[in-house]
Amino acid sequence: MMQPSQFFHQFLRLSTLLVSLCWHHTVTAQVTAPAQATPATQSQQPALAQTKQLPWVQKHRFVLHQFKTQQGAVIEQVQIGWEAYGQLNADKSNVILITHHFSGSSHAAGRYQASDAAPGYWDSIIGPGKAIDTNRFYVISSDTLVNLNAFDPTVITTGPASINPATGKPYGLDFPLVTIADFVEVQKALLDSLGIRQLYAVAGPSMGSFQALEWASRYPERVQRVIPAIGTAFIDSYTALKLQRWAEPILLDPNWQQGNYYQNQAQPSQGLTYALAAVTLDAMHPLAMAKQFTAPAQDSPAQQDIRTPLLAQQQLLALAQKRSKLMDANHLLYLVRASQLWRVGLGDDWQQAIRRIKAPVLWLPARNDLLLTPAMATTSQQALQRSSNNQLALIDGESGHLDGLRHIDSLQPLIRQFLAQPVN
Amino acid sequence: MMQPSQFFHQFLRLSTLLVSLCWHHTVTAQVTAPAQATPATQSQQPALAQTKQLPWVQKHRFVLHQFKTQQGAVIEQVQIGWEAYGQLNADKSNVILITHHFSGSSHAAGRYQASDAAPGYWDSIIGPGKAIDTNRFYVISSDTLVNLNAFDPTVITTGPASINPATGKPYGLDFPLVTIADFVEVQKALLDSLGIRQLYAVAGPSMGSFQALEWASRYPERVQRVIPAIGTAFIDSYTALKLQRWAEPILLDPNWQQGNYYQNQAQPSQGLTYALAAVTLDAMHPLAMAKQFTAPAQDSPAQQDIRTPLLAQQQLLALAQKRSKLMDANHLLYLVRASQLWRVGLGDDWQQAIRRIKAPVLWLPARNDLLLTPAMATTSQQALQRSSNNQLALIDGESGHLDGLRHIDSLQPLIRQFLAQPVN
Repeated sequence: MMQPSQFFHQFLRLSTLLVSLCWHHTVTAQVTAPAQATPATQSQQPALAQTKQLPWVQKHRFVLHQFKTQQGAVIEQVQIGWEAYGQLNADKSNVILITHHFSGSSHAAGRYQASDAAPGYWDSIIGPGKAIDTNRFYVISSDTLVNLNAFDPTVITTGPASINPATGKPYGLDFPLVTIADFVEVQKALLDSLGIRQLYAVAGPSMGSFQALEWASRYPERVQRVIPAIGTAFIDSYTALKLQRWAEPILLDPNWQQGNYYQNQAQPSQGLTYALAAVTLDAMHPLAMAKQFTAPAQDSPAQQDIRTPLLAQQQLLALAQKRSKLMDANHLLYLVRASQLWRVGLGDDWQQAIRRIKAPVLWLPARNDLLLTPAMATTSQQALQRSSNNQLALIDGESGHLDGLRHIDSLQPLIRQFLAQPVN
Repeated sequence: MMQPSQFFHQFLRLSTLLVSLCWHHTVTAQVTAPAQATPATQSQQPALAQTKQLPWVQKHRFVLHQFKTQQGAVIEQVQIGWEAYGQLNADKSNVILITHHFSGSSHAAGRYQASDAAPGYWDSIIGPGKAIDTNRFYVISSDTLVNLNAFDPTVITTGPASINPATGKPYGLDFPLVTIADFVEVQKALLDSLGIRQLYAVAGPSMGSFQALEWASRYPERVQRVIPAIGTAFIDSYTALKLQRWAEPILLDPNWQQGNYYQNQAQPSQGLTYALAAVTLDAMHPLAMAKQFTAPAQDSPAQQDIRTPLLAQQQLLALAQKRSKLMDANHLLYLVRASQLWRVGLGDDWQQAIRRIKAPVLWLPARNDLLLTPAMATTSQQALQRSSNNQLALIDGESGHLDGLRHIDSLQPLIRQFLAQPVN
C-alpha cells in the first residue's frame, strides 16, 4: 500500500511555494501579449494570415461590483478573465459564447504564445475555417466563478482563494455557495458591458453544457442556438454522489482544515491530487485507459506485496499531481457543489424549465461517456418535448467523457450545418 | 461540508467496543442451532416440510494447516466457515458450489433462525423447488479468505484481523497477499476433506464469478457447469483503479496506521464507512438511486450552504456505517487487491487460460451493471472461442450490479434449464 505522506513530501513543499508565489494572481495574472499580433512562426502568408490562423490570444479582465448570487449573498467584487477569437461585427450579431467544463477555463482556442504546449481545449473546432469559424463569428469565452485553476496565471477568477475585502484574507468557506446560474449571470454582465445583446449560439462541453442550457432557458430571447456537448439538463442523486467522491479526498485531508489552509505551511495537496485522480478516472473509459496504464496482469510488484501500490495507480496519481499544481482545493469543492445542484432553472421542476428554451438545440453526448451518459442527454432531449430543432448526435471514441474534448472535431460537419441553419 | 470527525464520534466508540468484543470470532463464532431442525413457524405441512422449506442453516468450520498461497507464502492455519443446503447423494455427484461476492459470505440461502432479518443473498434461486433445487442438489458455500465481514459472528475467515501465531497479535499487513486462486484452493481443500471430487456446477455473483471461472479453468475435469453472474474473466486497468477508490478512504484514514490499528482506541471506522459508501454507489444505478435517495433539487439545506452535506450523501453514509459495523478495514484492502489482480489463470494471458475451461458456461451479466459491465462479460464470453455451451443472458433491473442479487430470480427458468442439460 502507498504511504501517502511519503509520496507527497516533495510535492507538498513545491505546492506550498507555488501557493505563496501565486495566490495574488487576480492582481497580476493579466497576459500582456499585444492584441491581434500575428504568430509569424505559424503562418507564411502575410496577406491572409489573420484568416488562416488565430492571432495570439489575449486575456482580458472583467470586474463586477456587488454581485448578488442566486441564493442572495453579495460578493463585493467579482473579477473574471475572458478571451475572444475573431471580429465582432457592426451590429454585434455574430457572437458565439463558449462555456467551459469543470477543469477548464476561458482558454477555448488558440495559443498565448509560440511556446505554449497546447492550444485551447476546443481548438479543433474553433478557428478560421473550422466549424465555429472565427472568420465569421466573434467567439468569446470567460473564466467561471470559483474556477478550478485558481493559481494559473492565465486564469482570472473569484472564489474561496480570493481575498475577502471584509477581512483582508482569503474567503475560504466564507465565500458564498454559487450555482451554474451565477456563472451565467456573470457572463451576462460581461456581455452587457460589451454591448452584446444577442448570442448567435452558446456552446460548451460538460459543465459548459449546463451553462449553455441555463442561458437558453433563462434568456430565451437572447439565445439563438444551443450546443450542449457531453452534457445534461439535470444531475441525479447517483451522479451527485459520484461527484461527491471528487470532493471527499479533500474533505478527508487533515491539511484541509475546514478550508482555512491558505496561510498554512501544510496544504491539502494530497487531497487535491486524489480528487484530480478521481476526476480523471470518471472522465475516462476502459478502452483508452487500457492503452495508457499498466494492466494488473503486467504488474509483478503489486502481485507480490499488498504494500506495493498498483503501477496504474502510481501513474494516475503522478498525472493528477502534475495537473493539480495550479488548482485550488476549495475551488474544487465549490465546483462540485455547483455541479451537484445543477438542473435547468435550478427550481424543483427542470422538465418545465427546459421548455422555456426557444432556440434549436444540438445535443452531442459521447457514445462511451460513463460520467454524463448518453442516457442523460436523451432524457434531457426528450424533456424539451419537441420533434424539430432538437437534434442529437453521438461523439464516437474510446475516451468516455473526454471524447467531448478529444473527438469533438469528428462532428465538425454537423456543427457547421447546425450553425448555418437560419432561426426564426 | 461534513465534518467527518464529528460525524463519526459516536460510531467510533461503538465500533471500538464491537472490535474488542468480537475479534476473537474465529474461536467463538460457530452457530449452534441443531442440524436439520425444521422451522415450524414457516411451514404447516410436517410431512413435506423438509422438501418445501430449507431447514435452519448451520455453520461449519473447516481448518487447514500450512496453507501455501499462489505467491509462495505459508499461512500457518486457515479457518473458514461453510454451510450447505440439501442432501449429498451416495456417489457425491450432486454438488453445486456457490462462491460469494466481495461483501458476501458463505450465507447464500436460508436462515439461521426465525428472527433473521433476511435469508442468504441468493435465497431467491436456492432452495426446495427453486432453480438451484436443494431437493436434488447438495449446495455448498464457504467463506473466502480475508472475508470482509471479519467480525460477523456467523462468518469464519482468516486474514489480517486473525491472530498471527508467530506474534500472538493480529497479522495486519503481515498477512500475505492472497488471490482468487487462493480462495479456490481453500475451497478445493474443503471439498477434498468431504470426499467431493466432482462439481455438478459452480455458480457465483461478482467476485463469486471470478472463483467459479478459476475453478473451471484450473480444474476442468472436476467442474461440469459454470454460472458466472454479474462477472468477468478479467479486471482491466480502469476497473482496477475504480476498485482502488474503495481502498483509498481507508488508506487516507489517519487511524488506519499502516494496518496496525487492532490494539488502538482509535479505529479506521471513518475510512471503512466511506469505503463501503463507495462500494454501494459503484454497485448501484441512477434509476434505483433516484427512488432511494433525496435528489439535489429537493435538498434545500445543501442549496444554501457549502458547509451542509448533501442529504443523499448523509443517507449513503448512514447506510454504509450500518453495513460496516462487523467489517474489517484491512480485509477490505486485501479483497480489493485480490479483485484488482483478477483474471483467469492469474498469468499474463487470461484469454489463453479461459480456453482451458471444458464445462458449459452460462454468463449472466446485468443489463445496467456499471461496475462489471455486460461488455466485460461479452469480451470474456468471446475469449472462450466456442459457439456452443457458451451462453449469455442479461439480468434486467434498475439496480445496476446489484441486480445480480436482487433480480437473479428473473432468470430462474434459464438457470434451471442450464442445470438440467446433460454434459459429456
